[in-house]
Amino acid sequence: MNTVEKRPVYLQVRDQLADKIQSGIWLANEKLPAERQLSEQFSITRVTARQALVQLEAEGLIFRSNRRGWFVTPQRINYDPSRDIGFVSYVEEQGFSARTETLSKMLIEVPDWVAEQAGIPEGTPVYEIFRRRYINERPCLIEKIYLNPKNCPGILQHSLDRSLWHLLRTEYKLDPYERHIEIYPQTLEARVADALAVNTGSTGLYIRRLCHDQNGEFLELDEEFWLHNAMKVVVSVTSNG
Amino acid sequence: MNTVEKRPVYLQVRDQLADKIQSGIWLANEKLPAERQLSEQFSITRVTARQALVQLEAEGLIFRSNRRGWFVTPQRINYDPSRDIGFVSYVEEQGFSARTETLSKMLIEVPDWVAEQAGIPEGTPVYEIFRRRYINERPCLIEKIYLNPKNCPGILQHSLDRSLWHLLRTEYKLDPYERHIEIYPQTLEARVADALAVNTGSTGLYIRRLCHDQNGEFLELDEEFWLHNAMKVVVSVTSNG
Repeated sequence: MNTVEKRPVYLQVRDQLADKIQSGIWLANEKLPAERQLSEQFSITRVTARQALVQLEAEGLIFRSNRRGWFVTPQRINYDPSRDIGFVSYVEEQGFSARTETLSKMLIEVPDWVAEQAGIPEGTPVYEIFRRRYINERPCLIEKIYLNPKNCPGILQHSLDRSLWHLLRTEYKLDPYERHIEIYPQTLEARVADALAVNTGSTGLYIRRLCHDQNGEFLELDEEFWLHNAMKVVVSVTSNG
Repeated sequence: MNTVEKRPVYLQVRDQLADKIQSGIWLANEKLPAERQLSEQFSITRVTARQALVQLEAEGLIFRSNRRGWFVTPQRINYDPSRDIGFVSYVEEQGFSARTETLSKMLIEVPDWVAEQAGIPEGTPVYEIFRRRYINERPCLIEKIYLNPKNCPGILQHSLDRSLWHLLRTEYKLDPYERHIEIYPQTLEARVADALAVNTGSTGLYIRRLCHDQNGEFLELDEEFWLHNAMKVVVSVTSNG
């Protein structure tokens, strides 16, 4: 017992809170008691309560949502970049609910960096679509999409609150032939962070996907800004050699 | 010019420093002037100099190394989890130098969580190897490896400051048949952060790779803790359908 007593108070509180999460007393997405309540319950200062919570956040067990408090982190969703399967499909496949909300959609002149990535001339018109996507009603990612209007004229008149690639395949007979995907941690800028209800400058996971068709023509560039704790990349490889 | 003047001072300083990086005046891994020098040079307070540097850090343009100061972030190395290729090969392939340093190696009883992941009985002996790996002499990742001694008896007597899988293939005729890989951002714990000369609690990119042989026998579990800005996951997929 002595060794337990020597553990700093905030870590002792951390252990008791972690127990409630790991034993399933507190479930995924459940709201934790307010910091004030925790400090009364454990007879500790607000500062110590905060330390315990920040520790649990660092371990990924809880997350904070601006203005709403602390919540138990749900299981990460698996994302396999090598599979040609959309967000709605892989989220539902894993037993979660998926929801998509279109934040804006318009025709613009292609931003320079997109032109360079996509291999299209500067100033070419492209569709730009911003969406927010939810897993079990938690906002988990913001998506910025650039589409080549040549291939899907009038698509902005459709509802985009659903699988975009389902629409592209069925209405426009498009198929991504080649997909180049890059994934890395990145700081979330103010606009994205606000839309995900987290602090500006907190870490996110960034995914960029560039799709071309069989003739090498640019189809889509998709940027996804994920909460750092909402997803994991999972790849399984079996040798043939 | 008025709009420029209205931009907060730390962002004006940020812009001038970013210019030096983006124009190539300051090169990858180059040390920035000390905060004191920057504050004198721009006639600003140390606090403002610090704000500008933290902003550049958040954008990934510079990184700090404990006790050594601020440096220009080098280009991220590309890592493709779907390829069966080791660290030394893919780093050198991209024109960088790779170095590996063994921090510890010993025979231990398998940790419970490793036993569970690997599908081996509790208490089984395994080799545990900790290594630090450098790209262009910058420490970029810490690796924790668990190996099944049945398949590679005596391996700890070899130098492990090189490609482990080259050794396993040539000396022990092993081949990973099935590789299951998981990748996600994670906070770096004290021991790992210290070994990478960054602050405890800063974000890293975590990779876990689990290898089995053709008979489903456990070969290796490898955990890699990367600096968040040293690497990007890159996958290219071409449809066959």
